[in-house]
Amino acid sequence: MRVSRRSSVDPFIVMDVMEAARQAEAAGRHIIHMEVGQPGTGAPKAAASALADAMGRESLGYTVALGLPALRARIARLYGEWYDVDLDPQRVIITPGSSGGFILAFTALFDTGDRVGIGAPGYPSYRQILRALDLCPVDIATAPENRFQPVASDLEGRDLAGLMVASPANPTGTMLDKAALGSLIDAAAGQGASFISDEIYHGIEYEAKAVTALQVTDEAYVINSFSKYFSMTGWRVGWLVVPEDHVRVIERIAQNMFICAPHASQIAALAAMDAEDELQANMDVYRANRKLMLEGLPEAGFTKIAPPDGAFYVYADVSEMTDDSRAFAAETLEQAGVAVTPGLDFDPLRGHQTLRFSYARSTADIAEGLARLEAFMQAR
Amino acid sequence: MRVSRRSSVDPFIVMDVMEAARQAEAAGRHIIHMEVGQPGTGAPKAAASALADAMGRESLGYTVALGLPALRARIARLYGEWYDVDLDPQRVIITPGSSGGFILAFTALFDTGDRVGIGAPGYPSYRQILRALDLCPVDIATAPENRFQPVASDLEGRDLAGLMVASPANPTGTMLDKAALGSLIDAAAGQGASFISDEIYHGIEYEAKAVTALQVTDEAYVINSFSKYFSMTGWRVGWLVVPEDHVRVIERIAQNMFICAPHASQIAALAAMDAEDELQANMDVYRANRKLMLEGLPEAGFTKIAPPDGAFYVYADVSEMTDDSRAFAAETLEQAGVAVTPGLDFDPLRGHQTLRFSYARSTADIAEGLARLEAFMQAR
Repeated sequence: MRVSRRSSVDPFIVMDVMEAARQAEAAGRHIIHMEVGQPGTGAPKAAASALADAMGRESLGYTVALGLPALRARIARLYGEWYDVDLDPQRVIITPGSSGGFILAFTALFDTGDRVGIGAPGYPSYRQILRALDLCPVDIATAPENRFQPVASDLEGRDLAGLMVASPANPTGTMLDKAALGSLIDAAAGQGASFISDEIYHGIEYEAKAVTALQVTDEAYVINSFSKYFSMTGWRVGWLVVPEDHVRVIERIAQNMFICAPHASQIAALAAMDAEDELQANMDVYRANRKLMLEGLPEAGFTKIAPPDGAFYVYADVSEMTDDSRAFAAETLEQAGVAVTPGLDFDPLRGHQTLRFSYARSTADIAEGLARLEAFMQAR
Repeated sequence: MRVSRRSSVDPFIVMDVMEAARQAEAAGRHIIHMEVGQPGTGAPKAAASALADAMGRESLGYTVALGLPALRARIARLYGEWYDVDLDPQRVIITPGSSGGFILAFTALFDTGDRVGIGAPGYPSYRQILRALDLCPVDIATAPENRFQPVASDLEGRDLAGLMVASPANPTGTMLDKAALGSLIDAAAGQGASFISDEIYHGIEYEAKAVTALQVTDEAYVINSFSKYFSMTGWRVGWLVVPEDHVRVIERIAQNMFICAPHASQIAALAAMDAEDELQANMDVYRANRKLMLEGLPEAGFTKIAPPDGAFYVYADVSEMTDDSRAFAAETLEQAGVAVTPGLDFDPLRGHQTLRFSYARSTADIAEGLARLEAFMQAR
């Protein structure tokens, strides 16, 4: 059987790192995981117990395509709590993870061959999902002096049908403030490009609150998820906020492409939203880890880093050490017992001179990892 | 913001029926639901308790993209138990429902504009997902004398890149035997069309065992799900079986488009596979319901029906009663208090003279529904 052209997407390089780490562990070695992009914690306890209750009471069949009304209403309320934005619950659509949100957004907004701008470095699946839908990802090489976020002048002459931004960003953790976000939204609108804001790391922020695109405009798609702040990666539940006149469009696509997001996960997510104590305890860990990283990485020799505003990553320029981040990551795993992600996943052009360090796991792991990195770099 | 052309998919008409039924219930009426395509039962008890255990023990983060190895192995074993087929677990890929399976299969196999044959009548989302991916669904009007299944001669001159069949089919419940399936597989291969077999209703069969495409060839995609026989619609977990050399292709697409199927649902699904007693008790209900339907529908005047081989639907030709199945369904809801699905969802051309009756709910509901239909038709 033949294989389509659209299916020739790149593999995740981080998956190779994870597999190499797994093999090292199977061979008896102890590995510190700074490669993974998910919390070490599970769903809040309240989420698990709400689901256990529901399983005894309900048959958990399909929900309506837009999601459980109570969850949509609770998410709308979150926009009041977090951003002082008054959001109509009708504009909130529950999705099978942010992954489902990307597929719905791209399908609703773009046609074959449409050019969609994405920042480089950035989350690799943007590019791959766009390709799989026969859309055209346009890498926008962002500048270190702009903290690796696109700026309005980057869009000139791009002929974009859409622009996707992320704040806090993966892999850099940098954020766009309201002025910067507003300027990008204006620039996108100026060339008729639909604006999509990936806000999956909102809630995991350190010095200032993240700004949602909805504080600037209602004419945007916002993508979010329960995977990061709410610590529910494996549950595959997230949400979209879309302009009022796009709700029916998304509903029809979602009915056909997904039927609904997992019912059990929707129930767990609703309970997770009120587990503030447990979620803030997770945040205390991230804060402690970030402090360790910002001290320890320079001490180990990784001096070209920017303090992340949010998320749980540090992106490091290692151009003084290597032109082959993949080989460097392999060496780090082999000799230091620390798994890290080569930048190539995030930036196909410049990522051979960068690494992403994740600090999503326990503080003890982070301290041990930094000690190993320092010893490794001294011996190198 | 503009909306894409590819997003202009048709709504599910059954959703309008469900909404009208809901409104009638909200107004105090009692409605019998013969419109819904899902079991009235929930997941097997063993599934719920396995998940409750796991939630106390594991953090349920992402699984690998291909799914939990234990679940893939258990599904491979099912092919031995059900069909005496020896299947390599490596060829089994866990998907977010059969919906996820369709998206992965179509993306892996087809490029923009490719023509993919689907039987009419058939599951409406085939057509809509193909359109959303900018592929070209080709309706194959199947003949009543072929029990609404395509036959090899239907494919002549179609220039297909793919052929999708379902056995047991929705909305008719008819099956393809091994010879018929083999003949279609040969005919598809003869014009270079990839063969996709939707086997979601396997396990729900009455007179004979359903035949899997894997009994005929390894050169096919098989799509299945835990939604129907395993009674887990809302959990969004299913599987694909693909040729060995397609596994890596699907893995890369799945990593990017879905990351993984819901972890909790995979754990529940694994336990459900050994809940044979409870699943067979569900089957006893379907068998009793089917018997009632095959007696009661003709008594009520719906004589142009074919006994379903599998699934839980009866498809009726109502051409002697109406040319507007939508209006007829509305009348049935209004006057009989029975919600049924107009055939237009399944067959855009001929569905204005057909109805689908579902018998997935309790036997008491089916008996009451049939009594109401008979009274309604006598008064009409």
